[in-house]
Amino acid sequence: MIKINAERLEARLKALAEIGKAEQGGGWIRPAFTPQYTQARDLVASWMEAAGMKVRVDAIGNLIGRLEGDDPSAPVVAMGSHIDTVNNGGMFDGAAGTMSGLEVAASISEAGIPHKNPIEVIAFVEEEGARFGEGELGSKTMSGGLDKAALLAKKGYDGVPIGDTLRAYGFDPDRLEEAVAPKGYYKSYFELHIEQSHVLDSTGDVLGVVEGIASLIWLRGHVKGKTSHAGATPMNFRKDSFIPVAMIAQEAEKIAKAVSDNTVATMGKVQVTPNIPNAVPGYVEFMFDVRGLHMPDVEKCASLISERFYEICREREIEGEIEQTLYLLGAEVPDKMKDLVEDAVKQVGVPYRRMMSGAGHDAQMMARITDIGMIFVPSIDGISHAPQENTKFEDIAAGAQALCNAVLSQCG
Amino acid sequence: MIKINAERLEARLKALAEIGKAEQGGGWIRPAFTPQYTQARDLVASWMEAAGMKVRVDAIGNLIGRLEGDDPSAPVVAMGSHIDTVNNGGMFDGAAGTMSGLEVAASISEAGIPHKNPIEVIAFVEEEGARFGEGELGSKTMSGGLDKAALLAKKGYDGVPIGDTLRAYGFDPDRLEEAVAPKGYYKSYFELHIEQSHVLDSTGDVLGVVEGIASLIWLRGHVKGKTSHAGATPMNFRKDSFIPVAMIAQEAEKIAKAVSDNTVATMGKVQVTPNIPNAVPGYVEFMFDVRGLHMPDVEKCASLISERFYEICREREIEGEIEQTLYLLGAEVPDKMKDLVEDAVKQVGVPYRRMMSGAGHDAQMMARITDIGMIFVPSIDGISHAPQENTKFEDIAAGAQALCNAVLSQCG
Repeated sequence: MIKINAERLEARLKALAEIGKAEQGGGWIRPAFTPQYTQARDLVASWMEAAGMKVRVDAIGNLIGRLEGDDPSAPVVAMGSHIDTVNNGGMFDGAAGTMSGLEVAASISEAGIPHKNPIEVIAFVEEEGARFGEGELGSKTMSGGLDKAALLAKKGYDGVPIGDTLRAYGFDPDRLEEAVAPKGYYKSYFELHIEQSHVLDSTGDVLGVVEGIASLIWLRGHVKGKTSHAGATPMNFRKDSFIPVAMIAQEAEKIAKAVSDNTVATMGKVQVTPNIPNAVPGYVEFMFDVRGLHMPDVEKCASLISERFYEICREREIEGEIEQTLYLLGAEVPDKMKDLVEDAVKQVGVPYRRMMSGAGHDAQMMARITDIGMIFVPSIDGISHAPQENTKFEDIAAGAQALCNAVLSQCG
Repeated sequence: MIKINAERLEARLKALAEIGKAEQGGGWIRPAFTPQYTQARDLVASWMEAAGMKVRVDAIGNLIGRLEGDDPSAPVVAMGSHIDTVNNGGMFDGAAGTMSGLEVAASISEAGIPHKNPIEVIAFVEEEGARFGEGELGSKTMSGGLDKAALLAKKGYDGVPIGDTLRAYGFDPDRLEEAVAPKGYYKSYFELHIEQSHVLDSTGDVLGVVEGIASLIWLRGHVKGKTSHAGATPMNFRKDSFIPVAMIAQEAEKIAKAVSDNTVATMGKVQVTPNIPNAVPGYVEFMFDVRGLHMPDVEKCASLISERFYEICREREIEGEIEQTLYLLGAEVPDKMKDLVEDAVKQVGVPYRRMMSGAGHDAQMMARITDIGMIFVPSIDGISHAPQENTKFEDIAAGAQALCNAVLSQCG
């Protein structure tokens, strides 16, 4: 076991955070395919080179540093995350994992530890989708999951066709396929990431051994009643569109808890029309976000919510509809990888817990082509995608150490 | 019993509706203290004169036509409503009652029926509050309820101080008190109005005998939980601000029904923050409109809602607050006036029902200084304050006939 350099890790995270600071609204604005992103990528590339890694940028824009193994033909043990940000995002989402991967590689390189398998550190491009609206673009492309025609038919948030932007940054839209990893190229992929919620921060655990990335179903529904005067419409004459929505919000909470302890359901968006104090709501739209470690549980939860919603509408004799608008299969971490990561975490000697990742990550895409493992570090107060996003550097260092332990145990 | 002239009533309603049509958004834009309002008032004044009435505009801008009685010193039997509209309002709200009152006076005048008591028809100014934000301004002033200092401290919706606007339209802010009716001046006040909800339209009743104008309490509340990632926050780690609001919305429905059959409670306004599908709501604001025929019932309902809300917040260990932001005492129609109006309605021979007025009306202000009676005509589909506001002319004629019967029974 070697020890990573916590000071260097902190210094590099801070240096990276000098790039792409928002001029308005605080935090960072460093989406992919922007000058500030390129500047950040070049800086990371220079650190990779300093660590003795061979650096390449693939056909979609992923930055990859390779520390050659004793057997260059052996499958690669990879680490990675991303260095793009949402608009006015924080300095740790993605960066913490990318810099931790780099630190692990640099420490292994410096220590001169022999390793059969090559080690790669990847900064995946456009993970946030803040530039093209296409989240996890880099890892999706590498894992062969990109619908290129659909991507190129779209425009970025600046209104410019995505193909034009790719060309402007030196990428050839006709050759994106070259970024797909050859079959069997990777042995495993490890990602450290901030939790982006407040479970670790609440429990006092320093590290999370991720059991899987949640599968997701979105439901969109509405109730169409009758707008009427709040004072002039007796209770038994009204068709209040809000009450059924209020009812299903509560029921969904019970349903999610009953389905399994790693299934969640949230009514996060509710739009009341006309939304004035003295009118019985005539139309209400709502959305449910349902997630869980196992897609069958998520499907069960979503379908119980839908059934109960229609029952409520029938009971109240009011028109309602609910439909699935998004279905995203997550990724479960294989048992052997959970165990391996847990062992690596245990060696660090900090409190930890097994947990689910509710948010999507590049690891989810990489799960299509290799075994994944993930480590979470706490998000203070659960804040993410905001300037206030924060994690203690010592916690990131603990996570990077666990990452190092995990990688060393994999690369022979 | 004399018969009112339904054709003339319809023709005048249509002629009045030629004034103040909205250039955008449909319907009418005819708020008080605008050129189009003055034009409408002048037209109504000319019809009053044609009916042999003596016309005056009082110190606040109420238009009053007087049909002299055999005893000019006897207390006046009045009818009225308003001819101002909300922005993009309909052609019947206020106009139906004002024109019906005028038609009744014109019919009595033409028929040469002797009547001891003078009869006045009043078009109250600024009932809608669309100009100064001061609803029922004219009737409030006439009944002595105006807080003049507060009014003159405000600006109209055009940003101009109200005093300046009053002066521009020929009114002296220093002399508004002159519009207050002398004690005992009125014997009674009758108002026909569109229902503005869909009770009559649903039941098939043509007329409503109004038992009172609802008393009103508004409650504003909020729940302050914790915004967190919808996927990454297990159910037992969340502080969802929406669920308690959903719960109290449902409870309020039950509470209102239990308090009395003429008490209503509505959560008409709900604002969820951040209101995105993948975030557990961290802050939710809501408003309740509570109304009823009897203020003690309204108070009971509001206080039960508040108590239950705090209980819910305690049970869920989440921060919440609810407070009263509006308290408006309504007006009950005296029993003898209800009976008198019901007799007048019965003579018309159409289906009718006794009912509450959920919305406020000038009659509510006039109730401070005289006995009131009110007649409702149906609002098709319950629509009001919108271009689509509609009532069958034959139903207005039925109401005007009932109004005529009631007035004749009062003026000796």
